[in-house]
Amino acid sequence: MTKASVCTIGDEILIGQIVDTNSSHISRALNSLGIRVGKMVSIADDAAQIKDCLEAELRENDIVVCTGGLGPTKDDITKETLARMSGAQGWVENQEQKEIIIRILSSRGLQILDINLKQALVPDSCQVIPNKLGTAPIMVFRFPAGRFGHPAVLYSLPGVPFEALGALPDVLEDIRTHFGLGAIVHSTMMTYGLAESALAKLIEPWESALPADMHLAYLPNPVTGVRLRLSVYDADDSAPQRISAQFGLLKPILGDYIYAMEDTSLEAVIGALLRGSGQTLSCAESCTGGMISHLLTTISGSSEYYLGSVTSYHPDVKAKVLGVDPKVIESQGIVSAAVAAAMARGVRALTGSTYSVATTGWADSYGDDREPAGTVWVGVDGPAGTRTARFNFRNDRKRNIERFAASALNELRKYIISAK
Amino acid sequence: MTKASVCTIGDEILIGQIVDTNSSHISRALNSLGIRVGKMVSIADDAAQIKDCLEAELRENDIVVCTGGLGPTKDDITKETLARMSGAQGWVENQEQKEIIIRILSSRGLQILDINLKQALVPDSCQVIPNKLGTAPIMVFRFPAGRFGHPAVLYSLPGVPFEALGALPDVLEDIRTHFGLGAIVHSTMMTYGLAESALAKLIEPWESALPADMHLAYLPNPVTGVRLRLSVYDADDSAPQRISAQFGLLKPILGDYIYAMEDTSLEAVIGALLRGSGQTLSCAESCTGGMISHLLTTISGSSEYYLGSVTSYHPDVKAKVLGVDPKVIESQGIVSAAVAAAMARGVRALTGSTYSVATTGWADSYGDDREPAGTVWVGVDGPAGTRTARFNFRNDRKRNIERFAASALNELRKYIISAK
Repeated sequence: MTKASVCTIGDEILIGQIVDTNSSHISRALNSLGIRVGKMVSIADDAAQIKDCLEAELRENDIVVCTGGLGPTKDDITKETLARMSGAQGWVENQEQKEIIIRILSSRGLQILDINLKQALVPDSCQVIPNKLGTAPIMVFRFPAGRFGHPAVLYSLPGVPFEALGALPDVLEDIRTHFGLGAIVHSTMMTYGLAESALAKLIEPWESALPADMHLAYLPNPVTGVRLRLSVYDADDSAPQRISAQFGLLKPILGDYIYAMEDTSLEAVIGALLRGSGQTLSCAESCTGGMISHLLTTISGSSEYYLGSVTSYHPDVKAKVLGVDPKVIESQGIVSAAVAAAMARGVRALTGSTYSVATTGWADSYGDDREPAGTVWVGVDGPAGTRTARFNFRNDRKRNIERFAASALNELRKYIISAK
Repeated sequence: MTKASVCTIGDEILIGQIVDTNSSHISRALNSLGIRVGKMVSIADDAAQIKDCLEAELRENDIVVCTGGLGPTKDDITKETLARMSGAQGWVENQEQKEIIIRILSSRGLQILDINLKQALVPDSCQVIPNKLGTAPIMVFRFPAGRFGHPAVLYSLPGVPFEALGALPDVLEDIRTHFGLGAIVHSTMMTYGLAESALAKLIEPWESALPADMHLAYLPNPVTGVRLRLSVYDADDSAPQRISAQFGLLKPILGDYIYAMEDTSLEAVIGALLRGSGQTLSCAESCTGGMISHLLTTISGSSEYYLGSVTSYHPDVKAKVLGVDPKVIESQGIVSAAVAAAMARGVRALTGSTYSVATTGWADSYGDDREPAGTVWVGVDGPAGTRTARFNFRNDRKRNIERFAASALNELRKYIISAK
């Protein structure tokens, strides 16, 4: 199997000023070609470290993709370091990149300085893939087997994520052409409502019976639930079907804990259920404070089915805007099934939506005689009547709010499916 | 200078399914202690690779902080690998972590399985820092100088970001205690509304005149603004006052671009302005879809001043609930100063709050004849009348929504200060 390493070069990563997202994108792309990424490394703008690190990675891997350190300023020393490392005899001007530099700077109304044009100069030991979106060209260094014990290729990409991602298709095409590649097939199942350990126990017999070439990974997220991922490396054409068959065996075991057969979110699943159905949605939030509405509206096109929400943080807003009877609040408690139900019915009546979801709970240290901190009551209203559910978490305020919102979205999802 | 390396363990990082944010947070924290992070590495759930990589990093560094690979399931093999690597003679149950595991699972109404309790077992070669937010304890392995050529410490943290970050203060305290670290004094000034480059140009003369032992860092965040951090390493007692004096010189230069003299958020500053004042707040959101309300309610105690919000995603909700005249929407456009102002006035009338803030904009590809995509109109209403402001950003939907919300909060902040 072809092996790769992904490196980022830049002090801004190491001091924690910037989160490196390039490596993740590049790894996912390499994986999709059937290349196994065994390591990611981030190093400083330091010539000795760049040389040592890249040489070590080239010894261990067939391919090294590095990003960063190619800016026009003095602190960016990657190009000079690569020139020395690859035994370049001199520098050549890449005409295509030079034209791109002039075009980009002119279109921004900027003066074209020597420091900019210098970016078109590359060591004579590399091939160039032009960077259409920026000024620093992509450099490809091909090392013969004698150098690192096997033929190895080093790709040097700019660090600006927009440019690195823009160059990726050309880099992948170059890799595809130069290596004989086996395929990798991944597939993901999304679950909600079971902790990782409970899930693992429940599916243990299934997991033990998986074919030897099929690898299972648990990817837990306290907000979005546990993702199960099955992978087959060096896969043939039967792999997608074989993975699908294995996931099929899980469906009767996990039932409606499964919410999707692809890497997605509860709010996206709800969007997919409602889009094109003519049905609409509203919500009423108390303890979640707008987070459910925020999540629903992160989905592009949500305006087709999402009408809006009321965040009734103060009891008066619950009464005045949502029509929750103050006597119910007093007798049942503000965090109660009755109030959650009344809020859901209230916002549905106010907006005329097909469905509504409501939350009332204690996100942190308050709590009352009836319900402890970390409790939420969820109400869902719709054509099939009102349903309520209670959850309790023991996280901090921020995390409790996130989990309350996810629990409410999951109740809503189950309601819509059962009502459809 | 004390040197550190930050490692993440987990296949999900290497296949690009998850972006590693832990390393960035940990590096920033180590940097704040005056520790230089020379490398970040991400490796697979593979025993040989974990051993080789961590040993190599321990040879090169005084401190290695690794996250991940500590889950209860079979694919997580870090703990066993660390036990072998550190020459453990057996396993001991950490009573404190066991109690936390039982408490966390019980509070979630989950059954306590053997697989959960096993997480309290640690190699007898490590010390434990309890993980208060999750089930996998933090393990500290201290290696004598003979092993790697110098005394070295390995910290193993859980991979779940919430738990890793939650454990970080305890880990930093351990590092501070065990290494001879000179005192460091940092102080942060929060600014909003100026891009990093514009800010840098504005304060250039001030920056050039800073004392030689005072280090300035720009920490830009597209959502929360640019933080300016002044640091003095190996500081004496006069450092806090000297930093404060330097920041004092910036105040007349930056004016109300400065929103706080500590590392905080716009929503926390608004909370501090309103708490104890008897004044209250509500909001009306369209394109921000609940995010402003969500941010305001992340502040503990926000129920004292925050009454609630209406998310009027559909025009009918703007008219029916907020009382925005449909004729104004038609004549001025749904994304306009008039609609933002009417929404702010509407929600203030509905809730009876002292202040209100409203947004109407195009978060992504829509836009209309009047306003392009990425535009938001913000309205603020209160005792000093209605004010509106327009912003335009060129990001994706998610980032535009975040920046819209931050801009709205900043306008609200300025209004409250001027009205007080």
